[in-house]
Amino acid sequence: MELNTQPTLMPNLIINNTRMQDDFEQISRIGLKPNGGICRPALSKEDLEARAWFADQIEEAGFLVKDDDAGNLSAVLRCDNPEARTLLIGSHLDTVQNAGRYDGALGMISALECLRTIQESRIRLPVHLEVIDFTDDEGTWMPMFGSMSLAGQLPEGALKDTNGDKSTFRAALTRAGINPDHIHRAKRHPKSLMGYIELHVEQGIRLEQANRQIGIVERIVGRKSYRVVFHGQAGHAGTASMMERRDALQGAALFIIQAHDLVRQEFPEGVLNCGNLQVKPGAMTIIPNEATVIMEARHVNEEDLAAMELALGGLAQTCAENWRLGFDFSCTNHIPVALMNPQIIHGIEQACNEVGASYIHLSSYASHNAQVMSHFVPGGMLFIPSVNGVSHNPEEFSRWEDVITGTNVLLHSILHLALGTPPHPTQP
Amino acid sequence: MELNTQPTLMPNLIINNTRMQDDFEQISRIGLKPNGGICRPALSKEDLEARAWFADQIEEAGFLVKDDDAGNLSAVLRCDNPEARTLLIGSHLDTVQNAGRYDGALGMISALECLRTIQESRIRLPVHLEVIDFTDDEGTWMPMFGSMSLAGQLPEGALKDTNGDKSTFRAALTRAGINPDHIHRAKRHPKSLMGYIELHVEQGIRLEQANRQIGIVERIVGRKSYRVVFHGQAGHAGTASMMERRDALQGAALFIIQAHDLVRQEFPEGVLNCGNLQVKPGAMTIIPNEATVIMEARHVNEEDLAAMELALGGLAQTCAENWRLGFDFSCTNHIPVALMNPQIIHGIEQACNEVGASYIHLSSYASHNAQVMSHFVPGGMLFIPSVNGVSHNPEEFSRWEDVITGTNVLLHSILHLALGTPPHPTQP
Repeated sequence: MELNTQPTLMPNLIINNTRMQDDFEQISRIGLKPNGGICRPALSKEDLEARAWFADQIEEAGFLVKDDDAGNLSAVLRCDNPEARTLLIGSHLDTVQNAGRYDGALGMISALECLRTIQESRIRLPVHLEVIDFTDDEGTWMPMFGSMSLAGQLPEGALKDTNGDKSTFRAALTRAGINPDHIHRAKRHPKSLMGYIELHVEQGIRLEQANRQIGIVERIVGRKSYRVVFHGQAGHAGTASMMERRDALQGAALFIIQAHDLVRQEFPEGVLNCGNLQVKPGAMTIIPNEATVIMEARHVNEEDLAAMELALGGLAQTCAENWRLGFDFSCTNHIPVALMNPQIIHGIEQACNEVGASYIHLSSYASHNAQVMSHFVPGGMLFIPSVNGVSHNPEEFSRWEDVITGTNVLLHSILHLALGTPPHPTQP
Repeated sequence: MELNTQPTLMPNLIINNTRMQDDFEQISRIGLKPNGGICRPALSKEDLEARAWFADQIEEAGFLVKDDDAGNLSAVLRCDNPEARTLLIGSHLDTVQNAGRYDGALGMISALECLRTIQESRIRLPVHLEVIDFTDDEGTWMPMFGSMSLAGQLPEGALKDTNGDKSTFRAALTRAGINPDHIHRAKRHPKSLMGYIELHVEQGIRLEQANRQIGIVERIVGRKSYRVVFHGQAGHAGTASMMERRDALQGAALFIIQAHDLVRQEFPEGVLNCGNLQVKPGAMTIIPNEATVIMEARHVNEEDLAAMELALGGLAQTCAENWRLGFDFSCTNHIPVALMNPQIIHGIEQACNEVGASYIHLSSYASHNAQVMSHFVPGGMLFIPSVNGVSHNPEEFSRWEDVITGTNVLLHSILHLALGTPPHPTQP
């Protein structure tokens, strides 16, 4: 096994905290709501405003501004060799509705700061460095759309499905200046890329509990999304016997309760979220004839994820039968478990040691672009602590000293990767 | 007790079936959807089309067309005495979404046919007869808006509440040519009215089970509407521990299951419908932080209705505590139990005997305009059988021979009331 044992040229190099903090304050004002939450859903006015601001920073710093046919926006620091490969450092500027300030944005800000620090140090690297903002990480339209496009993993006809809201997605892309028919042109050749690395907030409490500064990700959870529809019979809310009703909402509510129980009891390493429930016709005076549960299951092992699906499908049937309902159980999306590259993991470990940052290894229960990218090129990822694990919430918070430590670890990880032996693809 | 024992002048008078069937087929085409359902929500284009069609029928038959400031539309057959009181015969042309053909429309068609039959028979009555279509019986905007306006029972500021969708209701009224600021002018003086009678489909299975043709309503169920909001904490669907979550949807689902159990077990004469559940933010990747149950409770006794409210409020608290949630439990509407007038009940019994129709007495678990009207003037109501009790559903069906029998009973009930001793107000 070859390891990146070569020491970096400037072991004492550190990022410029004041400049990065200023960046963070600026990006935190874009999409800011009165309640303190951030709202920059992919391709929204606020998301586009954040990209424009980021492009300005790239230009000011003297990097090359690049955007591809999937709307991914990059800052490129080219090396002397035009034939060299590129190390991608990525994250996202988009957010969920009513988000916090750190998720995504911090990865972009810290990567940009690393690029500036490296440029100023005048270190000559044998690879190009590219900081990339991936379109729609959060799935306002399609989760990790940008990285999937770059990796050529967008399903065939993903944008042509007239079932669902694809037409509004196409319209949103078009409004943002992205031609939906040219998305495939965003695909890059894996040979042109050396690897991918990403810094993110943990969004959990394991670093806090372990009292460590850095989480080195070993694998990223697999995710499956489901749409579970219960079909009953509409009827008059007052006159239909309560015993005889085929009430779709009752079946759905039972499923929501029991599905959580099932995962907690039988899949302790699994996670389930029922995120929405849509009721038709939705009137107080009419017995619901249709109730649709929108949910997502996650597990760090693909086998267990498949076993969860089987168990949840069986439960849907039991709940439907209990109320004499029909049901449809369909998987709408699958993002497989991803393994991070051992050489990149080792490079982050070395960087931690150099910076003097304590670390643990862990699995990520959140998806990240590293998940998509690591099926395509060697990938790696590091976490910094989230206070109380709160995320996707305006209360999301990370201590600034942890941000500085994490960014310095990212900086030295980049240098290790760029200067060391290139990592080999290891994804099964 | 004075009873309307005077025989009608024309005991063999019957309605014109062909003409009524033709009317029914015409009205059943207005708002007809490809699935066979009817969609004429109050003040919609389809509802206004139905009213215009009905006004045409009134004119063709030579009755006076009348509309009031709440949009109620009437056909008036005036008697010789201008000082005489008016017997109202009502129902509604509006429907819920995806309704059947009979609910409401049948009451209008049969009342119109009775008016035509009486006019053609040249019977001279000592009262005016008025067939009335009440605006928004079904509560697209506000349940029984038209009858409440006529009875002067619209709550103070009912249309001025900016909380909720009152502004769109005002706009819908205005588009229909109804001035929201003049609704109060629709109030009539109870002394000008002799009483109110209404024919409707049962929307239940009691007539079918008892094998009778007519249900004579003795009381109409009291209704209370509720909005139960559970407040949790948003969070990341993958990283927040399943044990630690404050998931608003879990609390709401538990409440929906247990509220039905509670009513079935402790209030066998009560009925509950959870008709909608709204989840925020509603994304698959975010733990729900707000879930709102929209529901309605009904009971034939006011005391039990109040006891149900107490029990449901307590249950909401238990469910909220179970998931460490906050909650709001608020009653959004209350329509009290209504007693029908004994003399009108007796008049319908006599009419059944004359027509040779079998009958039972029953309580109505559906609200009707008779409920509002009977708090204002003596009221009465009769049901015809609904096949399998299906209602608020395109499958709603009543046998046509039952329609004919019911309409003839309505005809003779009208004659009994018009010719007999006026009923005395009896509502407590």
